Amino acid sequence: MHYAKTILAATALVAATTVVAEQTPTERAIEYRKAAMTLVGSNFKPMGAMLKGEIPYDQAAFERHAADLAAVAGIDMLRGFPTDSDGQGSDAKPDIWLDWAKFEQGMETFTREATELAAVAAKGDRGAIKDQFGATAKTCKSCHDAFKE
Amino acid sequence: MHYAKTILAATALVAATTVVAEQTPTERAIEYRKAAMTLVGSNFKPMGAMLKGEIPYDQAAFERHAADLAAVAGIDMLRGFPTDSDGQGSDAKPDIWLDWAKFEQGMETFTREATELAAVAAKGDRGAIKDQFGATAKTCKSCHDAFKE
Repeated sequence: MHYAKTILAATALVAATTVVAEQTPTERAIEYRKAAMTLVGSNFKPMGAMLKGEIPYDQAAFERHAADLAAVAGIDMLRGFPTDSDGQGSDAKPDIWLDWAKFEQGMETFTREATELAAVAAKGDRGAIKDQFGATAKTCKSCHDAFKE
Repeated sequence: MHYAKTILAATALVAATTVVAEQTPTERAIEYRKAAMTLVGSNFKPMGAMLKGEIPYDQAAFERHAADLAAVAGIDMLRGFPTDSDGQGSDAKPDIWLDWAKFEQGMETFTREATELAAVAAKGDRGAIKDQFGATAKTCKSCHDAFKE
Protein backbone atom coordinates (compact mmCIF):
# COMPACT_ATOMS: atom_id res chain seq x y z
CA MET A 1 0.00 0.00 0.00
CA HIS A 2 2.72 2.36 1.08
CA TYR A 3 4.87 1.51 -1.91
CA ALA A 4 1.91 1.63 -4.25
CA LYS A 5 1.30 5.21 -3.14
CA THR A 6 4.95 6.10 -3.50
CA ILE A 7 5.02 4.60 -6.97
CA LEU A 8 1.90 6.51 -7.92
CA ALA A 9 3.27 9.78 -6.60
CA ALA A 10 6.67 9.25 -8.18
CA THR A 11 5.23 8.28 -11.53
CA ALA A 12 2.94 11.31 -11.50
CA LEU A 13 5.99 13.40 -10.65
CA VAL A 14 7.97 12.03 -13.56
CA ALA A 15 5.00 12.48 -15.87
CA ALA A 16 4.61 16.08 -14.74
CA THR A 17 8.27 16.97 -14.92
CA THR A 18 9.61 15.22 -17.99
CA VAL A 19 6.66 15.22 -20.34
CA VAL A 20 5.21 18.67 -20.77
CA ALA A 21 2.99 17.84 -23.72
CA GLU A 22 1.85 14.31 -24.41
CA GLN A 23 4.48 12.67 -26.58
CA THR A 24 4.14 9.81 -28.99
CA PRO A 25 6.38 6.78 -28.38
CA THR A 26 8.43 7.85 -31.43
CA GLU A 27 8.91 11.35 -30.08
CA ARG A 28 9.93 9.89 -26.75
CA ALA A 29 12.48 7.64 -28.45
CA ILE A 30 13.97 10.58 -30.33
CA GLU A 31 14.10 12.62 -27.13
CA TYR A 32 15.81 9.67 -25.45
CA ARG A 33 18.58 9.32 -28.01
CA LYS A 34 19.10 13.09 -28.17
CA ALA A 35 19.43 13.28 -24.39
CA ALA A 36 21.91 10.41 -24.44
CA MET A 37 23.94 12.07 -27.20
CA THR A 38 23.92 15.35 -25.27
CA LEU A 39 25.52 13.55 -22.34
CA VAL A 40 28.01 11.85 -24.65
CA GLY A 41 28.99 15.15 -26.27
CA SER A 42 29.13 17.05 -22.99
CA ASN A 43 31.70 14.62 -21.67
CA PHE A 44 33.55 14.06 -24.90
CA LYS A 45 34.11 17.69 -25.80
CA PRO A 46 36.08 18.81 -22.73
CA MET A 47 38.31 15.72 -22.98
CA GLY A 48 39.09 16.63 -26.58
CA ALA A 49 39.75 20.24 -25.61
CA MET A 50 42.18 19.11 -22.90
CA LEU A 51 44.07 16.82 -25.24
CA LYS A 52 44.31 19.54 -27.87
CA GLY A 53 45.57 22.01 -25.27
CA GLU A 54 42.62 24.34 -25.70
CA ILE A 55 41.99 24.13 -21.99
CA PRO A 56 44.47 23.01 -19.33
CA TYR A 57 44.77 19.27 -18.84
CA ASP A 58 43.19 18.28 -15.52
CA GLN A 59 43.61 14.61 -14.70
CA ALA A 60 40.76 14.48 -12.15
CA ALA A 61 38.35 16.22 -14.52
CA PHE A 62 39.44 14.00 -17.40
CA GLU A 63 38.84 10.86 -15.34
CA ARG A 64 35.42 12.09 -14.31
CA HIS A 65 34.40 12.84 -17.89
CA ALA A 66 35.72 9.47 -19.03
CA ALA A 67 33.80 7.69 -16.26
CA ASP A 68 30.61 9.58 -17.08
CA LEU A 69 31.04 8.88 -20.80
CA ALA A 70 31.44 5.18 -20.05
CA ALA A 71 28.30 5.23 -17.89
CA VAL A 72 26.23 6.84 -20.63
CA ALA A 73 27.76 4.54 -23.24
CA GLY A 74 26.51 1.69 -21.06
CA ILE A 75 22.85 2.48 -21.63
CA ASP A 76 20.91 0.80 -24.40
CA MET A 77 20.99 3.56 -26.95
CA LEU A 78 19.47 1.40 -29.69
CA ARG A 79 16.16 1.80 -27.90
CA GLY A 80 16.22 5.41 -29.07
CA PHE A 81 16.09 4.30 -32.70
CA PRO A 82 12.79 2.50 -33.33
CA THR A 83 12.07 1.74 -36.98
CA ASP A 84 9.22 4.23 -37.14
CA SER A 85 11.50 7.08 -36.14
CA ASP A 86 12.98 6.92 -39.66
CA GLY A 87 12.32 10.24 -41.39
CA GLN A 88 10.91 11.92 -38.28
CA GLY A 89 12.84 15.13 -38.63
CA SER A 90 16.09 14.19 -36.95
CA ASP A 91 19.56 13.82 -38.47
CA ALA A 92 19.36 10.04 -38.43
CA LYS A 93 19.85 8.58 -41.91
CA PRO A 94 17.57 5.80 -43.22
CA ASP A 95 20.77 3.71 -43.48
CA ILE A 96 20.39 2.97 -39.77
CA TRP A 97 17.38 0.79 -40.45
CA LEU A 98 18.67 -0.45 -43.80
CA ASP A 99 21.80 -1.81 -42.11
CA TRP A 100 20.77 -2.30 -38.51
CA ALA A 101 23.44 -4.92 -37.86
CA LYS A 102 26.18 -2.46 -38.77
CA PHE A 103 24.56 0.24 -36.65
CA GLU A 104 24.27 -2.09 -33.68
CA GLN A 105 27.88 -3.15 -34.12
CA GLY A 106 28.96 0.50 -34.26
CA MET A 107 27.18 1.21 -30.98
CA GLU A 108 28.78 -1.83 -29.37
CA THR A 109 32.22 -0.72 -30.52
CA PHE A 110 31.59 2.75 -29.09
CA THR A 111 30.52 1.28 -25.75
CA ARG A 112 33.60 -0.95 -25.64
CA GLU A 113 36.06 1.82 -26.49
CA ALA A 114 34.44 4.30 -24.11
CA THR A 115 34.56 1.74 -21.31
CA GLU A 116 38.22 1.17 -22.07
CA LEU A 117 38.85 4.93 -22.10
CA ALA A 118 37.55 5.19 -18.53
CA ALA A 119 39.90 2.38 -17.47
CA VAL A 120 42.89 3.93 -19.27
CA ALA A 121 42.08 7.42 -17.95
CA ALA A 122 42.09 6.14 -14.38
CA LYS A 123 45.71 5.00 -14.84
CA GLY A 124 46.86 8.51 -15.73
CA ASP A 125 49.29 7.74 -18.59
CA ARG A 126 48.82 10.72 -20.93
CA GLY A 127 50.11 8.92 -24.02
CA ALA A 128 47.84 5.95 -23.49
CA ILE A 129 44.94 8.28 -22.73
CA LYS A 130 45.47 10.17 -25.96
CA ASP A 131 45.58 6.93 -27.96
CA GLN A 132 42.45 5.55 -26.35
CA PHE A 133 40.62 8.85 -26.71
CA GLY A 134 41.50 8.72 -30.40
CA ALA A 135 40.21 5.17 -30.66
CA THR A 136 36.94 6.21 -29.00
CA ALA A 137 36.63 9.33 -31.17
CA LYS A 138 37.02 7.13 -34.23
CA THR A 139 33.97 5.09 -33.25
CA CYS A 140 31.89 8.31 -33.00
CA LYS A 141 33.13 9.53 -36.34
CA SER A 142 32.69 6.31 -38.30
CA CYS A 143 29.14 5.88 -37.03
CA HIS A 144 28.20 9.51 -37.65
CA ASP A 145 29.71 9.40 -41.13
CA ALA A 146 27.62 6.38 -42.01
CA PHE A 147 24.41 7.11 -40.17
CA LYS A 148 24.02 10.81 -39.44
CA GLU A 149 23.24 13.69 -41.81
CA MET B 1 49.51 12.92 -35.67
CA HIS B 2 46.89 10.47 -36.76
CA TYR B 3 45.14 10.63 -33.42
CA ALA B 4 45.47 14.39 -33.26
CA LYS B 5 43.57 14.61 -36.54
CA THR B 6 40.94 12.18 -35.35
CA ILE B 7 40.51 14.15 -32.13
CA LEU B 8 40.20 17.36 -34.09
CA ALA B 9 37.63 15.89 -36.44
CA ALA B 10 35.68 14.22 -33.67
CA THR B 11 35.64 17.34 -31.52
CA ALA B 12 34.47 19.43 -34.44
CA LEU B 13 31.80 16.83 -35.05
CA VAL B 14 30.57 16.98 -31.49
CA ALA B 15 30.67 20.76 -31.56
CA ALA B 16 28.67 20.83 -34.76
CA THR B 17 26.12 18.27 -33.69
CA THR B 18 25.40 18.99 -30.06
CA VAL B 19 25.85 22.74 -29.81
CA VAL B 20 23.78 24.55 -32.38
CA ALA B 21 24.22 28.02 -30.96
CA GLU B 22 27.14 28.91 -28.73
CA GLN B 23 26.14 28.11 -25.18
CA THR B 24 27.44 29.56 -21.95
CA PRO B 25 28.91 27.08 -19.43
CA THR B 26 25.79 27.62 -17.31
CA GLU B 27 23.47 26.82 -20.19
CA ARG B 28 25.53 23.73 -20.93
CA ALA B 29 25.25 22.61 -17.31
CA ILE B 30 21.48 23.06 -17.35
CA GLU B 31 21.25 21.16 -20.63
CA TYR B 32 23.37 18.42 -19.07
CA ARG B 33 21.18 17.93 -16.03
CA LYS B 34 18.00 18.10 -18.10
CA ALA B 35 19.32 15.44 -20.49
CA ALA B 36 20.28 13.24 -17.54
CA MET B 37 16.84 13.68 -15.98
CA THR B 38 15.19 12.86 -19.31
CA LEU B 39 17.04 9.55 -19.33
CA VAL B 40 16.11 8.94 -15.70
CA GLY B 41 12.43 9.64 -16.34
CA SER B 42 12.34 7.65 -19.58
CA ASN B 43 13.50 4.56 -17.75
CA PHE B 44 11.62 5.19 -14.54
CA LYS B 45 8.22 5.78 -16.04
CA PRO B 46 7.72 2.44 -17.86
CA MET B 47 8.88 0.55 -14.77
CA GLY B 48 6.25 2.38 -12.72
CA ALA B 49 3.60 1.70 -15.36
CA MET B 50 4.44 -2.02 -15.30
CA LEU B 51 4.25 -2.23 -11.52
CA LYS B 52 0.94 -0.38 -11.49
CA GLY B 53 -0.42 -2.72 -14.18
CA GLU B 54 -0.95 0.09 -16.69
CA ILE B 55 1.13 -1.85 -19.17
CA PRO B 56 1.91 -5.57 -19.05
CA TYR B 57 4.81 -6.57 -16.85
CA ASP B 58 7.77 -7.62 -18.99
CA GLN B 59 10.70 -8.93 -16.99
CA ALA B 60 13.29 -8.42 -19.76
CA ALA B 61 12.13 -4.86 -20.42
CA PHE B 62 12.04 -4.09 -16.70
CA GLU B 63 15.60 -5.36 -16.26
CA ARG B 64 16.79 -3.28 -19.18
CA HIS B 65 15.16 -0.12 -17.83
CA ALA B 66 16.58 -0.79 -14.38
CA ALA B 67 20.06 -1.34 -15.82
CA ASP B 68 19.84 1.84 -17.89
CA LEU B 69 18.55 3.81 -14.91
CA ALA B 70 21.49 2.57 -12.84
CA ALA B 71 23.91 3.56 -15.61
CA VAL B 72 22.51 7.09 -15.79
CA ALA B 73 22.39 7.33 -12.00
CA GLY B 74 26.11 6.52 -12.11
CA ILE B 75 27.05 9.77 -13.83
CA ASP B 76 28.07 12.80 -11.83
CA MET B 77 24.83 14.74 -11.95
CA LEU B 78 26.01 17.37 -9.49
CA ARG B 79 28.12 18.77 -12.30
CA GLY B 80 24.84 19.92 -13.86
CA PHE B 81 24.17 22.22 -10.91
CA PRO B 82 26.88 24.88 -10.78
CA THR B 83 26.23 27.69 -8.29
CA ASP B 84 25.69 30.25 -11.03
CA SER B 85 22.82 28.25 -12.50
CA ASP B 86 20.71 29.36 -9.52
CA GLY B 87 17.77 31.38 -10.83
CA GLN B 88 18.52 30.66 -14.49
CA GLY B 89 14.98 29.82 -15.48
CA SER B 90 14.85 26.15 -14.54
CA ASP B 91 12.79 24.46 -11.84
CA ALA B 92 15.77 24.12 -9.53
CA LYS B 93 15.13 25.80 -6.18
CA PRO B 94 17.78 28.03 -4.55
CA ASP B 95 17.68 25.54 -1.68
CA ILE B 96 20.04 23.34 -3.71
CA TRP B 97 22.87 25.78 -3.19
CA LEU B 98 21.74 26.80 0.30
CA ASP B 99 21.95 23.19 1.44
CA TRP B 100 24.37 21.60 -0.98
CA ALA B 101 25.35 18.83 1.45
CA LYS B 102 21.74 17.66 1.63
CA PHE B 103 21.39 17.84 -2.14
CA GLU B 104 24.61 15.87 -2.64
CA GLN B 105 23.44 13.31 -0.13
CA GLY B 106 20.09 13.01 -1.92
CA MET B 107 21.85 12.34 -5.21
CA GLU B 108 24.06 9.72 -3.58
CA THR B 109 21.04 7.99 -2.08
CA PHE B 110 19.33 7.98 -5.47
CA THR B 111 22.42 6.45 -7.12
CA ARG B 112 22.65 3.78 -4.44
CA GLU B 113 18.97 2.81 -4.60
CA ALA B 114 18.93 2.81 -8.40
CA THR B 115 22.02 0.61 -8.47
CA GLU B 116 20.34 -1.74 -6.04
CA LEU B 117 17.17 -1.74 -8.16
CA ALA B 118 19.14 -3.02 -11.16
CA ALA B 119 20.57 -5.82 -9.00
CA VAL B 120 17.17 -6.73 -7.57
CA ALA B 121 15.49 -6.55 -10.99
CA ALA B 122 18.00 -9.01 -12.40
CA LYS B 123 16.91 -11.58 -9.81
CA GLY B 124 13.29 -11.45 -10.98
CA ASP B 125 11.44 -11.56 -7.63
CA ARG B 126 8.41 -9.33 -8.26
CA GLY B 127 7.79 -8.53 -4.59
CA ALA B 128 11.40 -7.51 -4.02
CA ILE B 129 11.37 -5.53 -7.26
CA LYS B 130 8.28 -3.61 -6.19
CA ASP B 131 9.80 -2.81 -2.81
CA GLN B 132 13.08 -1.65 -4.29
CA PHE B 133 11.33 0.36 -6.98
CA GLY B 134 9.40 2.06 -4.18
CA ALA B 135 12.61 2.76 -2.30
CA THR B 136 14.13 4.29 -5.44
CA ALA B 137 10.99 6.31 -6.19
CA LYS B 138 11.14 7.72 -2.67
CA THR B 139 14.60 9.15 -3.33
CA CYS B 140 13.28 10.94 -6.45
CA LYS B 141 10.31 12.31 -4.56
CA SER B 142 12.12 13.51 -1.44
CA CYS B 143 14.74 15.31 -3.51
CA HIS B 144 12.18 16.86 -5.86
CA ASP B 145 10.01 17.95 -2.93
CA ALA B 146 12.94 19.73 -1.34
CA PHE B 147 14.76 21.07 -4.38
CA LYS B 148 12.45 21.35 -7.37
CA GLU B 149 9.63 23.83 -8.04
